Amino acid sequence: MQASLVDLVTATRQASRTIARLDSSAKNRALLAMARRLIDRQAEILHANEQDLRQAEAKGVSAAMLDRLTLDSDRLKTMSVALEELVQLADPVGVTTESWIRPNGLRVCRMQIPLGVIAIIYEARPNVTSDAAGLCIKSGNAVILRGGSEALRSNLAVVAALRQGLEESDLPAAAVTLMPSTDRQDMAVLLKMDSLIDLVIPRGGEGLIRFVAENSRIPVIKHYKGICHLYVDKDADLDMALRLLVDGKTSRPGVCNALETLLVHAEAAAAFLPRAHEILKRKNVELRGCPRTCELIPGALPAQEKDYDTEHLDLILSVRVVKDVNAAVAHIEQHGSDHTEVIVTENLTTARHFVQQVNSSSVMVNASSRFADGGELGLGAEIGISTTRLHAYGPMGLEALTTKKFVVLGAGQTRHPV
Amino acid sequence: MQASLVDLVTATRQASRTIARLDSSAKNRALLAMARRLIDRQAEILHANEQDLRQAEAKGVSAAMLDRLTLDSDRLKTMSVALEELVQLADPVGVTTESWIRPNGLRVCRMQIPLGVIAIIYEARPNVTSDAAGLCIKSGNAVILRGGSEALRSNLAVVAALRQGLEESDLPAAAVTLMPSTDRQDMAVLLKMDSLIDLVIPRGGEGLIRFVAENSRIPVIKHYKGICHLYVDKDADLDMALRLLVDGKTSRPGVCNALETLLVHAEAAAAFLPRAHEILKRKNVELRGCPRTCELIPGALPAQEKDYDTEHLDLILSVRVVKDVNAAVAHIEQHGSDHTEVIVTENLTTARHFVQQVNSSSVMVNASSRFADGGELGLGAEIGISTTRLHAYGPMGLEALTTKKFVVLGAGQTRHPV
Repeated sequence: MQASLVDLVTATRQASRTIARLDSSAKNRALLAMARRLIDRQAEILHANEQDLRQAEAKGVSAAMLDRLTLDSDRLKTMSVALEELVQLADPVGVTTESWIRPNGLRVCRMQIPLGVIAIIYEARPNVTSDAAGLCIKSGNAVILRGGSEALRSNLAVVAALRQGLEESDLPAAAVTLMPSTDRQDMAVLLKMDSLIDLVIPRGGEGLIRFVAENSRIPVIKHYKGICHLYVDKDADLDMALRLLVDGKTSRPGVCNALETLLVHAEAAAAFLPRAHEILKRKNVELRGCPRTCELIPGALPAQEKDYDTEHLDLILSVRVVKDVNAAVAHIEQHGSDHTEVIVTENLTTARHFVQQVNSSSVMVNASSRFADGGELGLGAEIGISTTRLHAYGPMGLEALTTKKFVVLGAGQTRHPV
Repeated sequence: MQASLVDLVTATRQASRTIARLDSSAKNRALLAMARRLIDRQAEILHANEQDLRQAEAKGVSAAMLDRLTLDSDRLKTMSVALEELVQLADPVGVTTESWIRPNGLRVCRMQIPLGVIAIIYEARPNVTSDAAGLCIKSGNAVILRGGSEALRSNLAVVAALRQGLEESDLPAAAVTLMPSTDRQDMAVLLKMDSLIDLVIPRGGEGLIRFVAENSRIPVIKHYKGICHLYVDKDADLDMALRLLVDGKTSRPGVCNALETLLVHAEAAAAFLPRAHEILKRKNVELRGCPRTCELIPGALPAQEKDYDTEHLDLILSVRVVKDVNAAVAHIEQHGSDHTEVIVTENLTTARHFVQQVNSSSVMVNASSRFADGGELGLGAEIGISTTRLHAYGPMGLEALTTKKFVVLGAGQTRHPV
């Protein structure tokens, strides 16, 4: 296995050189061909998916897991459309982001180029296979995909269709490579190939991400969890605060940009918390509050300290009344996960202070935490959200899959007289 | 040791929160105080350095190593002035690099913020101690310094002076922390502290860098070697090519942006190589060439294949005659180290092609490779040069010590109707 894994990844590295040099129209043609082949080969893909589903059922996996694993013709159509939509996005490669002239006349430019080979390690959602492949190709990268064992047949079928699309566009199929093994030891071997792979992005549960982080010699961009805070200031518009609270907590509680903790300025607590309780009760949200919260909301359960460190991903909200904005910032510093924090205030100075003091990857004033998303922020598409600061921080679009080279244009300048 | 190492780094992490929030004037005051204390405490620092030198001599280290280790009042003055000069540089923190408005009215900004805690791991040059500390403070970061065992007393004395400067500016001394141990096992422990340290930058020989890369769970920005190429095109101005060759190869052969390999278009070889030989002979440069080179230059030695993969760091130049620009690009792809490559040509289309095809961190047209340097390119100062693509690629200035958060300004927008 290990010898052939090196061969596979070496072929992907080789293919990455071709992909890196393509112009936008060549990449877009390939994306359209990949999209088309997903639909043309639907019967084959759905058949493979049925086999995966049957095996997963036999193993007794959860209903939620089965749902994530399931493909049908609607979901396949969505995957195909997502590839087509990448065509509309601006090509990040070749963009010159800055340029200046030195006193000696040298023009210095910084130009975006692809990273090279990106490994995406994920769990049971077969749609990640085509989404990640499309984002990598659009940004001029080759990709190694390593999905979960439950979805292996589905992923093989999806990748076969994508590779047919590449080949029909006269591009090397190896630019999209699925690891045929889902063994963790093989993954550990992959993670040592730092001369062939430029970046690893793990997507999935905390266990998977920790395994990758601890075993990788390749740079990893990761995201452990989202403990997002909404701070309601004393100068907040309380109607707005209620709307942002309800949207943040209840519109999709199981995602990482959902709210987990509500912080309320002591002077706003008596006016705000009973109203918040009333509306959240109707949405079946359980409140776990500090002593002052429990005074104001008889129905609230007392919060344990660990509640403030927990990503509930459920209809549960931790609540704390704080003395002022500085206490809110201190709470976020201690309990936050560098994902997304929101302040609700009409006071410009307080908003400014919060934005300066909080260095989470997304800091929002009077907007829902649910906007912490590549598509919503205007990045066009999203390969993930980083909560570590190197290279990318926050939602990652196509630009996060590039780096910048220096281009220097001269007229014969030397550093020393010759 | 290990318990106290965790305590040290935890204190630095704590201090990083204070440093991250300082405005520019507070940071600049501290830099000036640090600069002043290096001079005030000169006697103590030079005394410590003498002890280091005496011990190194007793161990029989090389003359070059002794030179790198030596401090005197001139070198100390240079270190102090380097800190003062940082005051003049623009503060990268808080700079908003991009901003746009979404269709729903949300304003999205990307704002530079410090990375947090940076560990710098280096060898015997005590000037790195103050240079790195200054760059980290200016960019709002705290720093863990881990120097070589030969320089321990010197580094302790330098850091004591720098910390006095911090304390006199009412800043936490822990923002500049020297590891008191130079044991490799303690370094390996440090390199696992990924919850306390955001970035590791190793500076030194290949052995040190490999040790760091292989043992670190923290992101590493590294630079193994610089095998820089000069390609002389058939449409080159040969006088200019000669000047760039002489400057690149001989102005300082021991540094990473010096030229190691000359590639010459077959049609330019007969006119160029004898002239190059004549001028390089006077500079005592040994040529190791391909068969065609040896035909044209009787004095050249035949190159071994491994010469093209070697960073000579000496007055030795590998030479190859190539068919055309594509052959030059292919040679660079096979043998290059992603540092710096130069084309000399008057042909715009060829220059454009070279710039697009070569993805080294610095790609130059008609300019000396010796400009691949943060100061020369206008970055103000340089913490190192990265030849890996994540986060930073090429010369790294203050901006490379920051990341960007998303700041979102709304008026109560929710993702779903509430």
